[in-house]
Amino acid sequence: MELDLGAYNIRTDLALEAKELAESGSGQPVPGLLSEVVQEEGITITRMIVENEAASNAIGKMIGHYVTLEVPGLRGQDTGLQDHVATSFAREFEAFMSRIGVSAQARTLIVGLGNWNVTPDALGPLVVENTMVTRHYFELMPDQVAPGYRPVSAVAPGVLGITGIESSEIVQGIVERTKPDLIIAIDALASKAVERVNTTIQIADTGIHPGSGIGNKRRGLTKEILGVPVIAIGVPTVVYASTIVNNCIKLMSEHFGRQTGNTGPILGMLPSLPEQERLQLVKEVLQPVGHDLLVTPKEVDQFIEDIANIIASGLNAALHEAVDKSNVAAYTH
Amino acid sequence: MELDLGAYNIRTDLALEAKELAESGSGQPVPGLLSEVVQEEGITITRMIVENEAASNAIGKMIGHYVTLEVPGLRGQDTGLQDHVATSFAREFEAFMSRIGVSAQARTLIVGLGNWNVTPDALGPLVVENTMVTRHYFELMPDQVAPGYRPVSAVAPGVLGITGIESSEIVQGIVERTKPDLIIAIDALASKAVERVNTTIQIADTGIHPGSGIGNKRRGLTKEILGVPVIAIGVPTVVYASTIVNNCIKLMSEHFGRQTGNTGPILGMLPSLPEQERLQLVKEVLQPVGHDLLVTPKEVDQFIEDIANIIASGLNAALHEAVDKSNVAAYTH
Amino acid sequence: MELDLGAYNIRTDLALEAKELAESGSGQPVPGLLSEVVQEEGITITRMIVENEAASNAIGKMIGHYVTLEVPGLRGQDTGLQDHVATSFAREFEAFMSRIGVSAQARTLIVGLGNWNVTPDALGPLVVENTMVTRHYFELMPDQVAPGYRPVSAVAPGVLGITGIESSEIVQGIVERTKPDLIIAIDALASKAVERVNTTIQIADTGIHPGSGIGNKRRGLTKEILGVPVIAIGVPTVVYASTIVNNCIKLMSEHFGRQTGNTGPILGMLPSLPEQERLQLVKEVLQPVGHDLLVTPKEVDQFIEDIANIIASGLNAALHEAVDKSNVAAYTH
Amino acid sequence: MELDLGAYNIRTDLALEAKELAESGSGQPVPGLLSEVVQEEGITITRMIVENEAASNAIGKMIGHYVTLEVPGLRGQDTGLQDHVATSFAREFEAFMSRIGVSAQARTLIVGLGNWNVTPDALGPLVVENTMVTRHYFELMPDQVAPGYRPVSAVAPGVLGITGIESSEIVQGIVERTKPDLIIAIDALASKAVERVNTTIQIADTGIHPGSGIGNKRRGLTKEILGVPVIAIGVPTVVYASTIVNNCIKLMSEHFGRQTGNTGPILGMLPSLPEQERLQLVKEVLQPVGHDLLVTPKEVDQFIEDIANIIASGLNAALHEAVDKSNVAAYTH
Repeated sequence: MELDLGAYNIRTDLALEAKELAESGSGQPVPGLLSEVVQEEGITITRMIVENEAASNAIGKMIGHYVTLEVPGLRGQDTGLQDHVATSFAREFEAFMSRIGVSAQARTLIVGLGNWNVTPDALGPLVVENTMVTRHYFELMPDQVAPGYRPVSAVAPGVLGITGIESSEIVQGIVERTKPDLIIAIDALASKAVERVNTTIQIADTGIHPGSGIGNKRRGLTKEILGVPVIAIGVPTVVYASTIVNNCIKLMSEHFGRQTGNTGPILGMLPSLPEQERLQLVKEVLQPVGHDLLVTPKEVDQFIEDIANIIASGLNAALHEAVDKSNVAAYTH
Repeated sequence: MELDLGAYNIRTDLALEAKELAESGSGQPVPGLLSEVVQEEGITITRMIVENEAASNAIGKMIGHYVTLEVPGLRGQDTGLQDHVATSFAREFEAFMSRIGVSAQARTLIVGLGNWNVTPDALGPLVVENTMVTRHYFELMPDQVAPGYRPVSAVAPGVLGITGIESSEIVQGIVERTKPDLIIAIDALASKAVERVNTTIQIADTGIHPGSGIGNKRRGLTKEILGVPVIAIGVPTVVYASTIVNNCIKLMSEHFGRQTGNTGPILGMLPSLPEQERLQLVKEVLQPVGHDLLVTPKEVDQFIEDIANIIASGLNAALHEAVDKSNVAAYTH
Repeated sequence: MELDLGAYNIRTDLALEAKELAESGSGQPVPGLLSEVVQEEGITITRMIVENEAASNAIGKMIGHYVTLEVPGLRGQDTGLQDHVATSFAREFEAFMSRIGVSAQARTLIVGLGNWNVTPDALGPLVVENTMVTRHYFELMPDQVAPGYRPVSAVAPGVLGITGIESSEIVQGIVERTKPDLIIAIDALASKAVERVNTTIQIADTGIHPGSGIGNKRRGLTKEILGVPVIAIGVPTVVYASTIVNNCIKLMSEHFGRQTGNTGPILGMLPSLPEQERLQLVKEVLQPVGHDLLVTPKEVDQFIEDIANIIASGLNAALHEAVDKSNVAAYTH
Repeated sequence: MELDLGAYNIRTDLALEAKELAESGSGQPVPGLLSEVVQEEGITITRMIVENEAASNAIGKMIGHYVTLEVPGLRGQDTGLQDHVATSFAREFEAFMSRIGVSAQARTLIVGLGNWNVTPDALGPLVVENTMVTRHYFELMPDQVAPGYRPVSAVAPGVLGITGIESSEIVQGIVERTKPDLIIAIDALASKAVERVNTTIQIADTGIHPGSGIGNKRRGLTKEILGVPVIAIGVPTVVYASTIVNNCIKLMSEHFGRQTGNTGPILGMLPSLPEQERLQLVKEVLQPVGHDLLVTPKEVDQFIEDIANIIASGLNAALHEAVDKSNVAAYTH
């Protein structure tokens, strides 16, 4: 009786990377792909809209809204920066909800995907633990709920290997019973770039799709399946060894290109291969000998805790008007 | 915005104690209440049937089947005894299922009730972590499942304060999606006797009822609600301070009664009060000053881990014919 | 090969209780025992000096300085109150050090006694985890240490059952190598009163003595043994079942005394027994049947975490002038 | 006030790798370097002796004894294989002690180096938690200790960032107080090869040296410092991104070499660079942009737990004759 629950099909889910890749190929902006970039102290915020099928096909991402926060310093364990990111995240998330038409009263179910026993996959469950839930007050004593709150519930459905049930089925059952107006699903992702691991947060209104995230989901969490909008919050927490190698070849190419103008003698044909082809080549060499591991920085325990706190406190502030936006971190522990 | 999620309504759920109480009152066996007691090395097993309404009313327990394993030595951290209890539990549980007509192929959902952040309430979630789940093999590759297994899934729905959703609602949603034939629900209980804390396991086919268990459930997990049989596994893990006091007065009464024949001058009217009345008196004194705490032995971390392993390995053996019954503990870690 | 590592000899270490006990016996203040009581919002602070042998004998506590913070509301999980207690604790601790002549530069070793695997005994190790250590900066880059800090180190020596070594021996070895000027030892205690469990913090300059605390220490941590002053911080986290019973009998006696004026018919001779004798009687009844358990409130996980944070943040503020005293909680996580 | 506690100086501590590297350079066996290799079911055991200065200089490893167990399948979570490795490790460790002249009665102190809050660095502390300590029985009731045991104690001294004290100083203090005859120090290492991460265990009698292991130790644990023999047990648990890249270039070189006979056009001069020079080149590209992270496989939590259990149960069996060698895993949990 064997079933490989492994994670072959991990795809990179960052729209930002998809856009960069597409534009680096053509050297031109993609029509139907709108984006603006805001630089804050230590944070780069990119707001993107994939407007139509053409743009969607061009970058391989669904039609929808995407916001990415890139915080290179996030691995530095700087609590001041963390509070600042939580505040920015809260503001962006609130604006995102309003942009896609979610009402301020929308009853919200937060879903923390992933496996709490595997640290780099425990982000979702950790966010759920630190989220301020309020739905039960609305159910049990609606008259006494102060203004400025909305009904929020939160679950961590676990993974197939622990429950024997697809997380999407568990969520679907809970949605059918509790009828939320909005799902927010948090998921850990595989990264396409070492520098994005534990430094980047993506918000998207396209839901969670099969094969995305670290675990090998067979069904998704989407509006089509669940009947309500699904906002996905994704954070790259692991990276393939092959990605590390591919990134490095690119860096070497740039390095020697600057020095010599011609990388051929040093790096052979590697720099001239298209990104995807080179990655494929690396995978073909690493996979047969079992070297294409999914890895995570050794400080993973602290990084995951820090980012979970940022997202949880950001959500608490974004979802409830009554929560003080100037000090969002005070509402988690 | 306030909601007391406390645990006022904790009732004692051990049918054994209800029977003893009823019989100590009348001095006679209760008609319609069948029971047999088996003594094994260190374990007392009591199998009970509440046959009819009369018996049910007499002891305040629902019509149904009950099995209790009492293991006074279980707090001794003796791994040999633990393995022995797991084996006995597996055998009793298998017989119990067959007695109440559960087929060997019944698709089973294990529900671990309780709060994983509160150690004496974490028993259910810990059992779920150590359970062998198989349902996904049956769903994804039915042809390759070896004989001797049945589809088992397992969830820990969390508590109202973490999820904002009644655990019964979460379970109901999952049941509706996954259509199991049997629910097994594990719950931590408040005990009516100090000596039963972390030493006693009860199996019952009456489900989980509102107000039972450590948390304050507002809805139950029953056949009526869920449409399939619900076997409840309960373990007393906490005890009220008032119960400790009441137990002690009884012990003092017996102690001095043996010595003097008349406890009046020493203990006043306390010994002559009916059990429930005396408990009520103690509560009236302790509660207003906040002293009627729910307490648990200081070694609670180890005790809960030990019992969770016993139940998980017992269930693994009872649910799957292919699991070696002579060494049930080998299947958990 | 057997060795009982149990906790027979647990004594109550609160000087406050000893004083109350002595005064309730004689009805008079004890000569040579100075004390003052300060009431703050939700906190009662008692500062005591046992001046001489006579006072020491009268209350059974060593000559020395004692400060107790009683915070009945501390089990209410009120973060505002917790911050307030941390601030008061910091102020009292700083004053305490100055009163007993510890210099502001004294090199300090914090010792977290207890067993990190047993939640109610894990207070000391948890404080160590949250303490701001600085000694290594002074050792490795003394020129660059900002003013307002002193060298602080911190260890959790573990318990005999895990290390095979008395914690006092481990500490002695570390003290001989690192030569601190001051030891601060944190220990969990057994309480003589239910209401003090997880609500009371005692500071004393008398060190840690054999048989005190939850574990069964065979050697102490004292100035005589270690050659430097030892400030002990003790928190009652467990209580004997016999203590609960004894407390309750006293409460019942007061309750019925108020109502009837004569408790004899109701409670027999129990109220008239001296406190210690009555406790002894209860123990004689409970111990032979294994009922005199050490218990802790079921919410022990949260309570211990809260108090550890209070003590750690209080120490951080008290030990380093540079730490902002108005917001001491910001320096732990 | 800043002190970088990072891990720049991580060196690879596997003698096996040093030998391979030296021999791959010269194409010849190194004089004074004795080795034998034993293949068992799934395990390759290499026993090495660096006999003299010449050999020591040739491979950059100290004179001494080295044993390495390589178990490529160890990341497969196969409990049968784990038990088998524990048994082999116990046998090798016992033989190792006898080879270097450690008596069967030698009083032993096990030191678990590393940071319990950083999973890939928590191996040492986890081994300590699962070790059978016996020293206290010998101290407190020597007459009653059964034959077949020796006095064993165990400590996890923590890391500089938590304690403010070098772990070597803490150990030195404990050694001076408790006078063991032998130190066994367990440490997590950085690997020079992806395939060795969490699959390889090295035993060496050369102690622990500054800069080795994952943390940045400034002083070592050696016979010179501690006055008694120090056996080091090392397990690679992390790997530099640069190592992954370097390994991959080598694999690519072999891959294309087999296919084309000439890798020049494809890989440029990379394959022709000496191993160390190429690694240096990769580091020069990755480090300035912060990409030379130390990483660990995403399943690190489970891997570390598995290996800690193997080492702890192996040590329990090797150190105590009375422990059944045929089922070493039964003595840990």
